[in-house]
Amino acid sequence: MVTKESLRVEKDFLGEKEISDSCYYGIQTLRAVDNFPITGQKIDEELIRGMGMVKKAAALANNKVGQLPRHIAKAIIEAAEEVIDGKLNDQFIVDPIQGGAGTSVNMNANEVIANRALEILGEEKGNAFVLSANSHVNMSQSTNDAFPTGFKLALLNRINQLLPVMEALHCSFLDKAYEFEGCLKMGRTHLQDAVPIRLGQEFGAYAAVLDRDIERIKQTRPFLYETNMGATAVGTGLNADPEYIRLVIKELADISGFPMKTSVNLVDSTQNTDVYTTVSAALKICMSNLSKIANDLRLMASGPRTGLNEILLPPRQPGSSIMPGKVNPVMAEVVNQVAFKVIGNDLTVTLASEAGQFELNVMEPVLVSSLLDSIKMMTNVMDVFNRYCISGIKANTERMEQYVRNSVGVITAINPHVGYETASSIAKEAIASGRPVRDICEERGVLSESELDIILDPFEMTKPGISGHELKER
Amino acid sequence: MVTKESLRVEKDFLGEKEISDSCYYGIQTLRAVDNFPITGQKIDEELIRGMGMVKKAAALANNKVGQLPRHIAKAIIEAAEEVIDGKLNDQFIVDPIQGGAGTSVNMNANEVIANRALEILGEEKGNAFVLSANSHVNMSQSTNDAFPTGFKLALLNRINQLLPVMEALHCSFLDKAYEFEGCLKMGRTHLQDAVPIRLGQEFGAYAAVLDRDIERIKQTRPFLYETNMGATAVGTGLNADPEYIRLVIKELADISGFPMKTSVNLVDSTQNTDVYTTVSAALKICMSNLSKIANDLRLMASGPRTGLNEILLPPRQPGSSIMPGKVNPVMAEVVNQVAFKVIGNDLTVTLASEAGQFELNVMEPVLVSSLLDSIKMMTNVMDVFNRYCISGIKANTERMEQYVRNSVGVITAINPHVGYETASSIAKEAIASGRPVRDICEERGVLSESELDIILDPFEMTKPGISGHELKER
Amino acid sequence: MVTKESLRVEKDFLGEKEISDSCYYGIQTLRAVDNFPITGQKIDEELIRGMGMVKKAAALANNKVGQLPRHIAKAIIEAAEEVIDGKLNDQFIVDPIQGGAGTSVNMNANEVIANRALEILGEEKGNAFVLSANSHVNMSQSTNDAFPTGFKLALLNRINQLLPVMEALHCSFLDKAYEFEGCLKMGRTHLQDAVPIRLGQEFGAYAAVLDRDIERIKQTRPFLYETNMGATAVGTGLNADPEYIRLVIKELADISGFPMKTSVNLVDSTQNTDVYTTVSAALKICMSNLSKIANDLRLMASGPRTGLNEILLPPRQPGSSIMPGKVNPVMAEVVNQVAFKVIGNDLTVTLASEAGQFELNVMEPVLVSSLLDSIKMMTNVMDVFNRYCISGIKANTERMEQYVRNSVGVITAINPHVGYETASSIAKEAIASGRPVRDICEERGVLSESELDIILDPFEMTKPGISGHELKER
Amino acid sequence: MVTKESLRVEKDFLGEKEISDSCYYGIQTLRAVDNFPITGQKIDEELIRGMGMVKKAAALANNKVGQLPRHIAKAIIEAAEEVIDGKLNDQFIVDPIQGGAGTSVNMNANEVIANRALEILGEEKGNAFVLSANSHVNMSQSTNDAFPTGFKLALLNRINQLLPVMEALHCSFLDKAYEFEGCLKMGRTHLQDAVPIRLGQEFGAYAAVLDRDIERIKQTRPFLYETNMGATAVGTGLNADPEYIRLVIKELADISGFPMKTSVNLVDSTQNTDVYTTVSAALKICMSNLSKIANDLRLMASGPRTGLNEILLPPRQPGSSIMPGKVNPVMAEVVNQVAFKVIGNDLTVTLASEAGQFELNVMEPVLVSSLLDSIKMMTNVMDVFNRYCISGIKANTERMEQYVRNSVGVITAINPHVGYETASSIAKEAIASGRPVRDICEERGVLSESELDIILDPFEMTKPGISGHELKER
Repeated sequence: MVTKESLRVEKDFLGEKEISDSCYYGIQTLRAVDNFPITGQKIDEELIRGMGMVKKAAALANNKVGQLPRHIAKAIIEAAEEVIDGKLNDQFIVDPIQGGAGTSVNMNANEVIANRALEILGEEKGNAFVLSANSHVNMSQSTNDAFPTGFKLALLNRINQLLPVMEALHCSFLDKAYEFEGCLKMGRTHLQDAVPIRLGQEFGAYAAVLDRDIERIKQTRPFLYETNMGATAVGTGLNADPEYIRLVIKELADISGFPMKTSVNLVDSTQNTDVYTTVSAALKICMSNLSKIANDLRLMASGPRTGLNEILLPPRQPGSSIMPGKVNPVMAEVVNQVAFKVIGNDLTVTLASEAGQFELNVMEPVLVSSLLDSIKMMTNVMDVFNRYCISGIKANTERMEQYVRNSVGVITAINPHVGYETASSIAKEAIASGRPVRDICEERGVLSESELDIILDPFEMTKPGISGHELKER
Repeated sequence: MVTKESLRVEKDFLGEKEISDSCYYGIQTLRAVDNFPITGQKIDEELIRGMGMVKKAAALANNKVGQLPRHIAKAIIEAAEEVIDGKLNDQFIVDPIQGGAGTSVNMNANEVIANRALEILGEEKGNAFVLSANSHVNMSQSTNDAFPTGFKLALLNRINQLLPVMEALHCSFLDKAYEFEGCLKMGRTHLQDAVPIRLGQEFGAYAAVLDRDIERIKQTRPFLYETNMGATAVGTGLNADPEYIRLVIKELADISGFPMKTSVNLVDSTQNTDVYTTVSAALKICMSNLSKIANDLRLMASGPRTGLNEILLPPRQPGSSIMPGKVNPVMAEVVNQVAFKVIGNDLTVTLASEAGQFELNVMEPVLVSSLLDSIKMMTNVMDVFNRYCISGIKANTERMEQYVRNSVGVITAINPHVGYETASSIAKEAIASGRPVRDICEERGVLSESELDIILDPFEMTKPGISGHELKER
Repeated sequence: MVTKESLRVEKDFLGEKEISDSCYYGIQTLRAVDNFPITGQKIDEELIRGMGMVKKAAALANNKVGQLPRHIAKAIIEAAEEVIDGKLNDQFIVDPIQGGAGTSVNMNANEVIANRALEILGEEKGNAFVLSANSHVNMSQSTNDAFPTGFKLALLNRINQLLPVMEALHCSFLDKAYEFEGCLKMGRTHLQDAVPIRLGQEFGAYAAVLDRDIERIKQTRPFLYETNMGATAVGTGLNADPEYIRLVIKELADISGFPMKTSVNLVDSTQNTDVYTTVSAALKICMSNLSKIANDLRLMASGPRTGLNEILLPPRQPGSSIMPGKVNPVMAEVVNQVAFKVIGNDLTVTLASEAGQFELNVMEPVLVSSLLDSIKMMTNVMDVFNRYCISGIKANTERMEQYVRNSVGVITAINPHVGYETASSIAKEAIASGRPVRDICEERGVLSESELDIILDPFEMTKPGISGHELKER
Repeated sequence: MVTKESLRVEKDFLGEKEISDSCYYGIQTLRAVDNFPITGQKIDEELIRGMGMVKKAAALANNKVGQLPRHIAKAIIEAAEEVIDGKLNDQFIVDPIQGGAGTSVNMNANEVIANRALEILGEEKGNAFVLSANSHVNMSQSTNDAFPTGFKLALLNRINQLLPVMEALHCSFLDKAYEFEGCLKMGRTHLQDAVPIRLGQEFGAYAAVLDRDIERIKQTRPFLYETNMGATAVGTGLNADPEYIRLVIKELADISGFPMKTSVNLVDSTQNTDVYTTVSAALKICMSNLSKIANDLRLMASGPRTGLNEILLPPRQPGSSIMPGKVNPVMAEVVNQVAFKVIGNDLTVTLASEAGQFELNVMEPVLVSSLLDSIKMMTNVMDVFNRYCISGIKANTERMEQYVRNSVGVITAINPHVGYETASSIAKEAIASGRPVRDICEERGVLSESELDIILDPFEMTKPGISGHELKER
């Protein structure tokens, strides 16, 4: 693939390597590729962008404090902007799971920017004397502050892609809550007949919990705004000019559009990873809730003939290669599956977080790639779940009303009028005989027909209060 | 509780402590009680027994190799037997979760046995010159071999209590498979109508998976028979006479009734805990399977009026404090809950196992207490699940047959005769119109009445083969 | 235990049972004991108190709205107060893990209070015509609102016991940060020598993360203040007078001292359990952080002769039954173990939460017992960790300084003065030869002796800035 | 990308879609691509191969039983062979995470093979009358037997790629055990000095546990050999000729080279997924063990100057972008990270398995993709861990011996000669004073110089027995 004429040689303190001269990445990137052929995946594009922003901000700040000559800074900034714009994505070739706490991602960025900057300057790639990946692009930085800052930006951008999708889904739940406001159905607890409820109330509950999920995820953002830029290797800020520290965060805020700020305690924020476990927990909780909702929908849509058949999900694809006409609740099923993946990823994030030692958590690569994967999958799945499933749900009102009419659960409304013990006896007879509760009440003469009309009005049962309380007071 | 006159003073190299002289435990037990007031629970009784067996076996072997004088050995053995018989259970007061890799459990056992043995010898408790917890009861041992050996015995005994309960549950599933052999019902995939199956086939599948679970759990026992007695502190066997090592395992086998043997590699078996993660995985897999079964039963028993209502679970308690007559599938629900607990415990066991360092895994106390808890809960829950739920399940055959008659899924049997595409079209019309598949087939004339009689025989559909294949061949 | 003369007979719609007349619990409690012999543990005392508060508040509110006659209410309130005061704890005999979504806990409370109230009224226990567990004690309630409200109160009280312990531990970390403010030591990343840091900075980082943990846990409380009292069975409020709903929450706030309020959406808050997964996540994150801290301490205290030996943990117990003089970091180890348990419990809570269906989550018993267990263990372990470990830590300053003097990592400070490439070459030689970095710098003449004095001042390296930046500017 | 002239129209019972005529996949594949844009990843190549094998075997068997005309079968077989050979990999475009229990993977395979077979026959793609994806390629099959069979083959092939890598790593551990056979070092328990051990014994323990991991993984294969081909939709075998069932498994065995056999109970093996949780558990246990080993290596390699510095790992890449000369244990760190991922995936697999309902587990796509990911990552990481780390480890024997000489832990060997209490007192003095144990023994005159020579021989301490036992007997 690589022709002879196009090779350059780069070296580091472990030796040297030949690299195709068309490549912007350098020797340390190649070493990482050799060392970590783990997943075969590419690193997240938002992580690449985040690293570009970090490098641009650092070059600006280093130049302002007089550490970085203007022409070098200018070239670095231009190259970093290309990284931010995604123009050099194909040069980011290290695996998302890697040893070294992100050094390979950071060096991949440093090398790509250094070599592209050299090119901009009209110099040969790899000429570290003119412009060095370590000394210039990585100036005043360590992997241990540059990489977390880069992935915090990536997380913020990914979260900002997720939130509107969640809000759209939330709207759909609300729309359906409104649409189904008057649809009476039987409530179920323990999968057993309970008392009447309205389908709209159920969708309202789905909207409510998702609303809290949106809030929970939003509330993690301020923690991501705090970053340890300037912490360098262990949080003490060695080799980072205090003025640079003040400047770089401002540049970062400007470039990213996020209100970034420097952590109060850089040692703390270099070694502790609780902000990520907090984000991951919010994701996990969200998907646990959505999985429950997906399960409810699958149950309500079960059938059509041998299930509950209370709602109809939009058909999305033939459901079987052998059973003609079968349609399955595939959009709900894929929500469950993403939930299982996100819950698994949360465990990975927790394990990685717990494994920090002393001044650094070297497990950050698997931590951040798991988090980014979770957010992306959630964004994708909630979008299609909303568009292809929730927004098209139809209620089978006839079926639902039939259930309400036949149910024994309405006995609960009679309870306050006759006492739990008598009501139990009526219920028992109704279940055993298959007869309506109302008939038995009438037969036993415990309540008059007109009283029963009032007490057993199912719509009234879906609102707080004792059904027919005015009768009691008489 | 402790009167002044009854105190004795014990000391170790960190200082001394007063102990009520009525207590058999000693200073190190008291230190552990101070240090670890974590769960407030007692250690498992089988772990106490296991430690007693270890101490008895060691005393026998130490005496035989001439390390332990006969009268000392005799007293230790007698005291250890009382421990094995549960007579001194109230003297085991350390918390199951404790720092120190089980040293506190081991020393609790050493001290109780030493002081009881001193008493047997007519000596004062705490007289370490005559009989010392460390030098005599713990002779040739370290916590690092004595404790794992003790809890392996505990695990083996607990597993042996679990297995007959599993087998009884397995029998009940088989009984039900036989009882429901002829009960036609609709099979469901994706909670959607699929093709006919028999309820007996479903219970047969439950029996089959539980049978594998029994096997999986049984197959972990040989790993538990291998123990590192004689490994002492780090697996090298320092201070353990080779002849003692040969003898102690035989004594242990005799005392416990298990075919105990010495691990081939004592260093390995002192530091690695994969045998426990293997046991835990088998438990977790079993409960995942049972949780699925419990879910199926809850679905089939759902209703009675607004659910599937295919089976009846024995009523066990009023299901609601407000809804009279309600009965819930409580025995299935508690199976789910134990499953969630066992899956959580498996994670704890995995985390503890991964945290071993060098020659020892100091997290063994939480590991073994989680494992023992899981086995006990499983034993308890499967017993009541079997007796109070499975064995009393009744089939609602009428309802199930009605489902089969109404189902569109039977179209699948027509598939080989008319092709998937035509069959899809018939299915689509059936679903849209609510009419039976059979009627549409007849109307369209795709198959004759007599052909449909053969092809649509639901019982035939529950057996391998193309329903009405003889028609095709014509 | 039960003498013949003291039996009474109670019945429910499933039949009747004999109960010792000395017992306040009744038939449904007994059924639960039969059905769920799962863990053998008792339910949390704070849960008992919480249920007592719920019953008292309901009786007060029911009386005010005219549903409950005054003398009945009075007796119920008196009995409920005894429950709150823990006087009837021995009457709560149901297992914490139980099918039925907490019905058994709720009925245990209803029955105990009913029978005690009957006794107060001078009536015979079990006389449901006078005062019924269901009709009077449970009036206007369902398990589905009473039980969650009771355990929210239990969680709040347990959290309020946890927080001061966390704050005390936080103070100890801060004290140590102050005490060790001037203790230079080598920072480590990847367990490899990095650059100097101060031990006080490390303890400051521990304090910082724990401070966030305190905040994270505190911030879950407002969600627990919102409760679904009045929701009754499915959240619609059937059988709960709107005026009662308004009153009962005020009573609950008065009784509990917490600013309780009624959920805006009762259907939502009856079926969704995200508030618990949120609490559990905060606990899990806290213990992940503490586990990392415990690991750091174990590493720093490793040795004494063959480890890092940078700090001394207070000796708490002899560490070995075979190795004399050995002392282990047992208080740190037990922190790790509780972390593993809490992480496992968080999984259980997540699984239980995801398993909700329709109007209710029937897995709440295992969910809440796991949460309460986690909080209790955390309270216990942080208390002893603080008192027996953190507060007594001593620094081995001599050893730490020796590490700093010998380290190659100080080369980093030279970096900005000579460039990364030259610095690498010096570092490489230092490592290979075992010689100090300073000597090689001098030998190579890259920096003068006086420059090196300034640049290599390790204390300066622990503060932001380029060590010897004034030299660069010259 | 798609030019106008090259479109064809395909339809199913939900409607029709335009497809580029250069594509072999069809309408159902396109629907799946629309519905499930979840991960953006491709399905595993071995899964594609496995599906190809299933389709070839089915065509062979269907032809033999006379269901499938010879020329149709021939074309299908030829197309399936191209799939097996990976020639049509680019036509498999569905996402690995998908609703529908694998229907989309199965239909992707059916459509690709149908259209390629049509091409081979000289027919137009999409001509279902001649050769239909459902009626011919999927003949006698359902997704519910074809898909699991395909992914069992994929798992088997992936496991067979994993095992030689594990065996190579095992060999390297054994080689190192042999190489370091004579390297004395201090054993550590609780990270505290214990008693001497040999580095070779430690590597021997690593080899031993990995050997069991190999066995554990191997032992899962027989369960994967059993497949439910012929089960069709729900395990009853509807539409699968019994003769076909007998034949298809033989063909599958021939094609795959694995001893495939038909499950005894097809209903069971269609709905239960315990075989996958069993495989996943074996993977998880393996990675927990390897993570512990990686941690040990990172600890032993810590330093070089401020850590244990007992071994040297081969340097693989510069370890820091800011600290020159730093080299980190990156190959061990990436092992930890893969462990965290595999443990997280095991949770995902468990959750998916538990979520089966009735006759099918519709969560299989996420289950199988997580499993395949785990195996691939493990294969990759163990390969580089072996080649780039383990095989090049060097022992720092000088350092290790120095630790042994200085250690207090050797006091343990003196224990049997002087008693635990006296030994404790000597140890305490040694630790407090910093003096060697030997000196204090001599000073106190507890043992003679020559006795100490024998007892304190560290090499002897690494073998079972009482060091200097011959002295005791005197």
